[in-house]
Amino acid sequence: MGLWDVDKIEYVGHDKGPGEGLAFHYYDADRVVAGKKMKDWLRFGVAWWHTFDQQLVDPFGDGTAHRPYYKYTDPMDQSLAKVDYAFELFQKLGVEYFCFHDRDIAPEGDTLRETNANLDKVVDKIEENMKSTGVKLLWNTSSLFTNPRFVDGASTSPFADIFAYSAAQLKHSLEIGKRLGAENYVFWGGREGYENLWNTDMAREKDHMADFFHMCVDYAKEIGMDAQFLIEPKAKEPCMLQYDFDASTAISFLQKNDLMGTFRLNLEGNHANLATHTYQHEIRVARDAGVLGSLDANQGDKLIGWDMDEFPTDLYETTAVMWEVLDEGQIGPHGGLNFDAKPRRSSFDAEDLFRSHVAGMDSFAAGLLVAAKMHEDHYIEDLVSNRYGSFDSGIGKTVEDGTATLASLEEYAIDKPQSELIAATKSDHLESVKATINNYMIEALSE
Amino acid sequence: MGLWDVDKIEYVGHDKGPGEGLAFHYYDADRVVAGKKMKDWLRFGVAWWHTFDQQLVDPFGDGTAHRPYYKYTDPMDQSLAKVDYAFELFQKLGVEYFCFHDRDIAPEGDTLRETNANLDKVVDKIEENMKSTGVKLLWNTSSLFTNPRFVDGASTSPFADIFAYSAAQLKHSLEIGKRLGAENYVFWGGREGYENLWNTDMAREKDHMADFFHMCVDYAKEIGMDAQFLIEPKAKEPCMLQYDFDASTAISFLQKNDLMGTFRLNLEGNHANLATHTYQHEIRVARDAGVLGSLDANQGDKLIGWDMDEFPTDLYETTAVMWEVLDEGQIGPHGGLNFDAKPRRSSFDAEDLFRSHVAGMDSFAAGLLVAAKMHEDHYIEDLVSNRYGSFDSGIGKTVEDGTATLASLEEYAIDKPQSELIAATKSDHLESVKATINNYMIEALSE
Amino acid sequence: MGLWDVDKIEYVGHDKGPGEGLAFHYYDADRVVAGKKMKDWLRFGVAWWHTFDQQLVDPFGDGTAHRPYYKYTDPMDQSLAKVDYAFELFQKLGVEYFCFHDRDIAPEGDTLRETNANLDKVVDKIEENMKSTGVKLLWNTSSLFTNPRFVDGASTSPFADIFAYSAAQLKHSLEIGKRLGAENYVFWGGREGYENLWNTDMAREKDHMADFFHMCVDYAKEIGMDAQFLIEPKAKEPCMLQYDFDASTAISFLQKNDLMGTFRLNLEGNHANLATHTYQHEIRVARDAGVLGSLDANQGDKLIGWDMDEFPTDLYETTAVMWEVLDEGQIGPHGGLNFDAKPRRSSFDAEDLFRSHVAGMDSFAAGLLVAAKMHEDHYIEDLVSNRYGSFDSGIGKTVEDGTATLASLEEYAIDKPQSELIAATKSDHLESVKATINNYMIEALSE
Amino acid sequence: MGLWDVDKIEYVGHDKGPGEGLAFHYYDADRVVAGKKMKDWLRFGVAWWHTFDQQLVDPFGDGTAHRPYYKYTDPMDQSLAKVDYAFELFQKLGVEYFCFHDRDIAPEGDTLRETNANLDKVVDKIEENMKSTGVKLLWNTSSLFTNPRFVDGASTSPFADIFAYSAAQLKHSLEIGKRLGAENYVFWGGREGYENLWNTDMAREKDHMADFFHMCVDYAKEIGMDAQFLIEPKAKEPCMLQYDFDASTAISFLQKNDLMGTFRLNLEGNHANLATHTYQHEIRVARDAGVLGSLDANQGDKLIGWDMDEFPTDLYETTAVMWEVLDEGQIGPHGGLNFDAKPRRSSFDAEDLFRSHVAGMDSFAAGLLVAAKMHEDHYIEDLVSNRYGSFDSGIGKTVEDGTATLASLEEYAIDKPQSELIAATKSDHLESVKATINNYMIEALSE
Repeated sequence: MGLWDVDKIEYVGHDKGPGEGLAFHYYDADRVVAGKKMKDWLRFGVAWWHTFDQQLVDPFGDGTAHRPYYKYTDPMDQSLAKVDYAFELFQKLGVEYFCFHDRDIAPEGDTLRETNANLDKVVDKIEENMKSTGVKLLWNTSSLFTNPRFVDGASTSPFADIFAYSAAQLKHSLEIGKRLGAENYVFWGGREGYENLWNTDMAREKDHMADFFHMCVDYAKEIGMDAQFLIEPKAKEPCMLQYDFDASTAISFLQKNDLMGTFRLNLEGNHANLATHTYQHEIRVARDAGVLGSLDANQGDKLIGWDMDEFPTDLYETTAVMWEVLDEGQIGPHGGLNFDAKPRRSSFDAEDLFRSHVAGMDSFAAGLLVAAKMHEDHYIEDLVSNRYGSFDSGIGKTVEDGTATLASLEEYAIDKPQSELIAATKSDHLESVKATINNYMIEALSE
Repeated sequence: MGLWDVDKIEYVGHDKGPGEGLAFHYYDADRVVAGKKMKDWLRFGVAWWHTFDQQLVDPFGDGTAHRPYYKYTDPMDQSLAKVDYAFELFQKLGVEYFCFHDRDIAPEGDTLRETNANLDKVVDKIEENMKSTGVKLLWNTSSLFTNPRFVDGASTSPFADIFAYSAAQLKHSLEIGKRLGAENYVFWGGREGYENLWNTDMAREKDHMADFFHMCVDYAKEIGMDAQFLIEPKAKEPCMLQYDFDASTAISFLQKNDLMGTFRLNLEGNHANLATHTYQHEIRVARDAGVLGSLDANQGDKLIGWDMDEFPTDLYETTAVMWEVLDEGQIGPHGGLNFDAKPRRSSFDAEDLFRSHVAGMDSFAAGLLVAAKMHEDHYIEDLVSNRYGSFDSGIGKTVEDGTATLASLEEYAIDKPQSELIAATKSDHLESVKATINNYMIEALSE
Repeated sequence: MGLWDVDKIEYVGHDKGPGEGLAFHYYDADRVVAGKKMKDWLRFGVAWWHTFDQQLVDPFGDGTAHRPYYKYTDPMDQSLAKVDYAFELFQKLGVEYFCFHDRDIAPEGDTLRETNANLDKVVDKIEENMKSTGVKLLWNTSSLFTNPRFVDGASTSPFADIFAYSAAQLKHSLEIGKRLGAENYVFWGGREGYENLWNTDMAREKDHMADFFHMCVDYAKEIGMDAQFLIEPKAKEPCMLQYDFDASTAISFLQKNDLMGTFRLNLEGNHANLATHTYQHEIRVARDAGVLGSLDANQGDKLIGWDMDEFPTDLYETTAVMWEVLDEGQIGPHGGLNFDAKPRRSSFDAEDLFRSHVAGMDSFAAGLLVAAKMHEDHYIEDLVSNRYGSFDSGIGKTVEDGTATLASLEEYAIDKPQSELIAATKSDHLESVKATINNYMIEALSE
Repeated sequence: MGLWDVDKIEYVGHDKGPGEGLAFHYYDADRVVAGKKMKDWLRFGVAWWHTFDQQLVDPFGDGTAHRPYYKYTDPMDQSLAKVDYAFELFQKLGVEYFCFHDRDIAPEGDTLRETNANLDKVVDKIEENMKSTGVKLLWNTSSLFTNPRFVDGASTSPFADIFAYSAAQLKHSLEIGKRLGAENYVFWGGREGYENLWNTDMAREKDHMADFFHMCVDYAKEIGMDAQFLIEPKAKEPCMLQYDFDASTAISFLQKNDLMGTFRLNLEGNHANLATHTYQHEIRVARDAGVLGSLDANQGDKLIGWDMDEFPTDLYETTAVMWEVLDEGQIGPHGGLNFDAKPRRSSFDAEDLFRSHVAGMDSFAAGLLVAAKMHEDHYIEDLVSNRYGSFDSGIGKTVEDGTATLASLEEYAIDKPQSELIAATKSDHLESVKATINNYMIEALSE
């Protein structure tokens, strides 16, 4: 049955009972929903680092993962072997995209030149597999945080040699992105932040980060690499505070440094929670600023204070995300749903890599179905447009068309009694809204 | 149509579309599920304080609630009028239980004697209504936290006069409980805790609290009041730290003070979250100690750090709660689901009191249906019993039957190679478990 | 001894033992520190709402405060009486500034016209007192959150009449600011946010907020009011999410809406914590963007999830704040330290209003002394400039002067061995930095 | 200068300026404070795992630590070499105790028999060094969480073979404790908890844990090992929920399982914070129950949701801890302050191991000085005894001597007017208390 001891995952529907095991209950790739195939709304991607490299360690324990390619003990042999395993997994899952950091796919040498040579060998093999299978690169990125040299950051390191090395490393990563036809290129600044503010020149560090981004933009132009550049916000961990704290903070940085228009955002559910936001909030902020780029599909545990990277299974969250996507018309111009997620440490079998992706894909497919049902009925759209209707005409219109002033509004309001003002506010029946969303969930999924 | 401008709420089922408005989609009181009527599993109760007294204030704003009985401006008149509104609401909702604090139902006088007289007048009217309608008292309690005299606690106040007053107030509250046939009596120690540890003699305060509880037990016996006594844990708010922090802390207190067997716990979802626990966790802790008493049905927002008292609408949470209840066989010997919840401040219409209860009742009814489906299939039961199967025989059995020693186990284990130990651990396929629960949810609710 | 039963607070120094009671141990108003008088670095302000209006309620209890002017039962009488109490308190504390919301100082009438008339009477009296005492208005603001009409916001309300009313209310507040010579004018958007994203058009709401700000800017120009406009960020509470979440989010909003240059920020310690930031972080963010305006001096409890508004007593925090202020040269062009703080509910005596301000003023004075000592020694400045020294010349300089490219940096880095890169990173001895700050604290305060 | 390129750390006092580098400013081992030598109050211990084994990895990056013994590449060689480095470090720091897990000091073999053989070789060398230097073992423990076999727990593993192995491993760890004269023996149940409650039989797991503890108690008796047994609570991480959540939860477990009297608690500052408690709270809870055993001296960051294990430098926290210790008379019968702490990842030099211990030792010595000053003045004692004075006689005394009943207290209170009750409550002037503690801090440390 191939390298993995698992059959191709099939869609069986949800009317065969809850326990069908390794099969899709909701994800039916070619089913048309809201005018597009499910797979085209969702554009699922597998994350190389979690799926193939993550040994399921945690800060208090060694890796538990059982993986068939651990039989390869030479790092380069294992890296090359993983390519075969990866593409078979993509195809058995029916996933058409993948994502990787440069350091996920090949071991480092002593110098960047040696490292790049290692990298190129694996990229050769990946390129062949992409051609033969049609699987595409949603995005690639560069790990500027794992190696000890990045202890204080990469583009924000206080040490110029580290900035220089980071830039050099990034250069080849862009070249690989171009070669493999990456649709996006992601920057996650995991160490671009601080441990302690007392010894940190935050302004200088952020200026360096902006310099770095501009160099990357220039080089991409130079080589004709046209992937969409994306920043991925995260509030904290590993840093005490990361500069791309959340969508708003990242947008503020882009605005200040003339990078709006060039960069968009890659947003993650668990990262949203670490900033005390919902995933939906972060997506909405990005949409409102016109910078929604792509999504890292995972979930956190809101009672836990660190990054869990759980596979997404909460249907409330997948529904909210997919509603935003439907309302936007797409995830982003080139965006997809990358599973930046790992099985729990106790789900250590190789088979759990399949089980967890199935759970995530089904949960997002279900979210799409619920959102599409609400969208079809204009349920949320009508709720919202009615609520703000008083701005469509009369005094409200003067606010929106720019003719109102404090004086004109004072004239309008100064003699209104309290009762009239209270009557102007309408109950939003929020508890019924929540109940209705529950009803949509059941109705959409039981069809 | 009566005092409230709302018709009796009917069950319409869930196949008429998501937007039926003021009707039950899942709650069908007399439908038999898992061997009992829905209403007998759920035993819903209305909370007097939130439903009739809460004006929807918050720390930054005045009350927004619109309530028909605000036309009564004399406090006593309003209190008496509320009784009529209350019993009509109970009947229109089809709720058979209610709960109240002494101070919810009648205004205070200058002395306790005067206050008790006010109270008795309203209790007279409540008693009549209970008789004529058949609605029962799930529990009553005493507010030992609102009045400024309780600024530093009641039974844990550093001021002996306040302890004395609290005991006196409690005495009459027990008498009322007996008179109205309360099935339980609740102690929520909202001010039994501290603002600052530096000026607090925690040991002395907790000893006073134990003295207080023993006096209450003695008096209840003396007057033949047989309601189940319940402690309601909460981690913090209003205190920086409350002594009944969570179920485990309350149990530790009961153990130390010879009150196990006399007291059980009343557990609340939002309070669980404030201790960073899930609601299910707190219920399980109480079940394992044999002290599950009753439930306060509400939900918090896990990204928010204060008590929200939202009406429960999260089907994952209601399913988990109801699974524990099904596994236990009941909520508690006399327990029910009291809606310790208020509509959002922007859901201020009188009608929203109905809407929000409908949302909560439907959500718990749906949770019951999902849990019952899983229970019927023994899905969780089998998962768990298989997982621990190695303790049913062999070396595992020697642990449970008390014959194992460190030496006997050393002999068993000392020469086992690592590979054999790893093989003894089994993946728990957690992601598939979560997906299966999703599947149960849809299947159970679409039937 | 006047209206308050408290003598004027004197500076006694810190060598008389820890328990001097109502006296300053560190705050010596005219003592010159780092080139300016203490009072000119600190510019303390009293917050009318907490000090004179706050009854020390919490969500679970009635007010505990004892205040001498509660003998005035007519709202207008009490408002006028408070002015006398206020100015005596300012003078006994030796505080030269105060701050207020429009609704703090006078009761509302049924229409805005009536309300404004009430307001003007109290403003007349305040103006007289300002003239006779020399006490100045640090800032005023408008309460657009307390009245139920603002249940869904003011400038972001979905109801146009409420927008209009808010604008009208604001107009008179600006007029009062001009009349009293307010040095700043603050906008705290406590209800400018959402309860639930599903029924919220966030983009439209934020556009309305921008419109509102522009109208205010225009009107201030029109009437020649030249107070510095300030936005005060807060993450959440009362809203689930407030649009001015933190400094970065507010800056992003100002950038988008062409309001940089017109607005600065008023930052608060407890609000910083609710966004999971330190106070120092928020101040640094504002400084780096050139928008530090003023400070609300209070502290939160980092293990608590709601707004505590404690008087500031943590010397680590006051030191960090004052170091940022020293490094900036001032709090802001017109900024001060407004005590947006209330005594704990159990510190209910009128005298505690003095005790708590003394605690806060002494703590900030102490923080200033510690920061000045570190500043004098260039301790932090040297630490930081050394740490980033590699960018002052060589390859680092090419980054900062804009001549570096990915290619030039690749050429520099591509053959560097790992050992050389590791050697380029330097330990920051963070634990010694923390110990040294402790040592500075003791040394500076024991002098 | 020996194995480490650092001189013996000397006490230089705090009057030489803040920047003395590697020297004690407050810790003067033989200075008598409150009747005992500083070193006898503090009993500092070095934690083998953090100090010698921790490579300063985090979930997003490889180890940054520079350690001189990394030149030994054979695991056993390195383990033996570390013993020399360890004892030199203990002596250069002037620390008289250390602590270790079995797996910290020697590598595992394929079977427990082989592992134990490795262990014994290193223990031989440690024993020799203890004899020659006089350094003592504060406590040892067993790592039942690092190896993948413990993925689901040790004594609470669902797999009987893992329970058996854990018991066998523990047996030898107790034998080593006896051999080296351990004063305490610690149980930290890092994996004794759950990832997900749905597949967990919590009651059965906790019963197994109790069985395990009883076996350990029995075996210790059998071999005449008389170390004090200690449980170390932690709320979460690595588990979603750990069974020893906090002091109260651990006490509840000990009560239920007849282990009070046999076990005490080892409490850690950062673990307290993860349960949303202060360190002082946890210590007080343990004191009140008579189970304070020992302390893990570290600190967390209260705005961060994971275990930081920072070296303790917050003087407020060290003062609070040492005040509890002074009031108790000792840390515990055999307790000490074990530095369960690691330098920040960016403090990677070998020298930082010394710097960070100096920072921690000085901070606790300073805390001791402040607490002793307050203790000498009976500041807190008087505050507290006055506050509760109304229970020393009159009606309060009837509560404490057991003669009060609800009826006797009703008689006392029923006619008291509200004014009299309010007058019975006294303001606690909390802001002045906080300011006074600041004043004590400065006064005590500047002497």
